[in-house]
Amino acid sequence: MQLPSNTLSQAVEALSSLPGVGKRSALRFALHLLKQPTDEVLQLSEAIRRLTTDIHYCRICHSISDEELCPICSSPKRVQSIVCVVENIQDVMAIENTQQYRGLYHVLGGVISPIDGVGIRDLNISTLLERVQKGIPSPIEEVILALPTTMEGDTTNFYLNKQLQPMGVKVTTIARGVAIGDNLEYADEITLGRSILHRIPFSNN
Amino acid sequence: MQLPSNTLSQAVEALSSLPGVGKRSALRFALHLLKQPTDEVLQLSEAIRRLTTDIHYCRICHSISDEELCPICSSPKRVQSIVCVVENIQDVMAIENTQQYRGLYHVLGGVISPIDGVGIRDLNISTLLERVQKGIPSPIEEVILALPTTMEGDTTNFYLNKQLQPMGVKVTTIARGVAIGDNLEYADEITLGRSILHRIPFSNN
Repeated sequence: MQLPSNTLSQAVEALSSLPGVGKRSALRFALHLLKQPTDEVLQLSEAIRRLTTDIHYCRICHSISDEELCPICSSPKRVQSIVCVVENIQDVMAIENTQQYRGLYHVLGGVISPIDGVGIRDLNISTLLERVQKGIPSPIEEVILALPTTMEGDTTNFYLNKQLQPMGVKVTTIARGVAIGDNLEYADEITLGRSILHRIPFSNN
Repeated sequence: MQLPSNTLSQAVEALSSLPGVGKRSALRFALHLLKQPTDEVLQLSEAIRRLTTDIHYCRICHSISDEELCPICSSPKRVQSIVCVVENIQDVMAIENTQQYRGLYHVLGGVISPIDGVGIRDLNISTLLERVQKGIPSPIEEVILALPTTMEGDTTNFYLNKQLQPMGVKVTTIARGVAIGDNLEYADEITLGRSILHRIPFSNN
């Protein structure tokens, strides 16, 4: 597509680097911005620029934060003895949205994946082990593994469990099974199989 | 959705002002940007900022341009006596992509729409009439109306035709009909009706 202006071309080029945004959508974004008031466009430009300077990661759990400690780690209302290990920040937000968890988190920043060149040292694993060993910020009794059920996730689970068990901490993993509201008939065999294998007493439902 | 950082919240808020981008996509964009190299993010921020300062509109046709005259208006290869009137810049690009048109353009910037408060004075109509009357940049023999086939587009067509006819210029409109490759059976009645009404000699096909 031939654009009549270099400035526009560059904006389209830059916008199409966003995930799932092609040249066509990027052009739509750029032309939309041209019609907006100048201060709104500058606000967007500035908000993006500030992502490079004003974002920090929590010293304890590695979640995104404006301060040295994230709101969760610094909240006195959270249960300090339980840590939920997740792959990324989106997972923290997903679990927070359920309002069913009152413990702390630990964001690994990925899972072990030799194919993608992601090893143990590339992830926030050493700080997790240190947290459990030294009891940071306070003694930890349970580590919940909430990593994806992929080969890489399972490998990471396996490694973490092997390291954590000798420390005397309880290691659990989130329940997998047929989703609420789903028909058994359409569930895949592995999920349904796990649901039956890990059945729970009726009253806990 | 509760975000753990104000900087992130503000970026999500700003990004979700883009057309068709909800809070979820905006968050995906922001988290993607956090993982990108700083200079790429700054490049995006800068490209957006420059949309407010470095974009100009062609003095003659009102299309986007880096200079006072757009590449089309300033090209000696274009047929200067034909002007195609379109609603917006996207339409210019769509017609340019066909590589079937060698004349000039005139971008109205919208169509007459009393409901949306868009009147004749809000559009680039007076400059079009002046162009035709005074022959800017050179005498104009034909004006092609390529506005949308909506009530507003038809109203605008009607108004422009009424103003242009007395100036002795030939006023035409682009052909509407069943699209190439479409089945007649699935074409809507109005389109198929027009296709039959405005049938052309076989050799012109």
